[in-house]
Amino acid sequence: MKYGVFGTGMVGLTIANRLAELDHEVMIGTRELSKSGDKLKSKNVAVKVGTFSESAAFGEVLFNATNGAGSLEALKLAGEANLNGKVLVDISNPLDFSKGMPPTLFVSDTDSLGEQIQRTFLNLKVVKTLNTMTAAIMVNPRGVADGDHHVFVSGNDASAKDMVIGILKEFGWIHILDLGDITTARGPEMYLPIWLRMWGVLGTGMFNVKVMK
Amino acid sequence: MKYGVFGTGMVGLTIANRLAELDHEVMIGTRELSKSGDKLKSKNVAVKVGTFSESAAFGEVLFNATNGAGSLEALKLAGEANLNGKVLVDISNPLDFSKGMPPTLFVSDTDSLGEQIQRTFLNLKVVKTLNTMTAAIMVNPRGVADGDHHVFVSGNDASAKDMVIGILKEFGWIHILDLGDITTARGPEMYLPIWLRMWGVLGTGMFNVKVMK
Repeated sequence: MKYGVFGTGMVGLTIANRLAELDHEVMIGTRELSKSGDKLKSKNVAVKVGTFSESAAFGEVLFNATNGAGSLEALKLAGEANLNGKVLVDISNPLDFSKGMPPTLFVSDTDSLGEQIQRTFLNLKVVKTLNTMTAAIMVNPRGVADGDHHVFVSGNDASAKDMVIGILKEFGWIHILDLGDITTARGPEMYLPIWLRMWGVLGTGMFNVKVMK
Repeated sequence: MKYGVFGTGMVGLTIANRLAELDHEVMIGTRELSKSGDKLKSKNVAVKVGTFSESAAFGEVLFNATNGAGSLEALKLAGEANLNGKVLVDISNPLDFSKGMPPTLFVSDTDSLGEQIQRTFLNLKVVKTLNTMTAAIMVNPRGVADGDHHVFVSGNDASAKDMVIGILKEFGWIHILDLGDITTARGPEMYLPIWLRMWGVLGTGMFNVKVMK
């Protein structure tokens, strides 16, 4: 499978490298190719690098790992024609760092970034997932408590969610909880504030929650 | 120990009955004594019933189990003189049901109901806890996964938190995570949207999260 991964931060690189490790073809998408290309070469990233538009055209499945504040613009640069009909795994969080730490959310409660993306690109199949943990756990859940914890999935398209659940299982996920349509993305996005506080108290990002019944 | 429990809904009754079961003296506080008194008698509640003010005066430790939207008013009716210097275990959630289901939050992100209460009553020692689960689990955590899941605690006063942690242990809590000062209450309050969605998907409120490291 060919993947386009938008974003050259830690999340984007982690996702892209893991997909490559699983023998998929990957092109990272970046805003400034000249700048990010050199940076990525210096990190020995074993994947292709292109513009958002090139990455979107390349990928059969797409990952949004850009900063939440820049996600809509990045997707506009990717180009609607390159997005239409495809599945977008949306990992972004609507974090606003402009007011100091801890960050606040620039959209929440009655809306979410996942919904904003879905409303802006009606023919993109947005599946919100993986935004509730640190990058290392996203792609290697067995690294914490042998994978005995949960990841959430939200999206309107059942077959798109099935495809994403397949990718999550490739990553090693055992416990995958489908919360419902894309409006349920408000929950995992609004979980960030407690996640950030737990991170502060636990002194590590290497944790996740398990739903106990 | 003498407890004042504000609120005659399911949470208030569950907390009050559990405290009585643990051989504490309890007075439930209500806005309309004539109305709620009869209602509570018909439910065979084995605790005293009084006004918010009488309950606050009676309790050495207080529980806020009122609806979030009415919490500040209930505490004002309780009377600052009856609150001053005491510990308030704040279980309330800032749920706004006026816009339909699922409820939204009337305060979040840059503030929380726990902080609003603390700012309004400077000499009250507010400890936010237990708001992230259904009432039956609050007072009997062993009822789910033999208690192998977490409760969070937020508050400015270390000795008040120690006292509340003692009460949580009486209830049967094993895993208690202190998130920090009262501003950290934003996290557990903003956890409600994902909790509500999990409740919908799991078809039961009898679940809670465990932090896995």
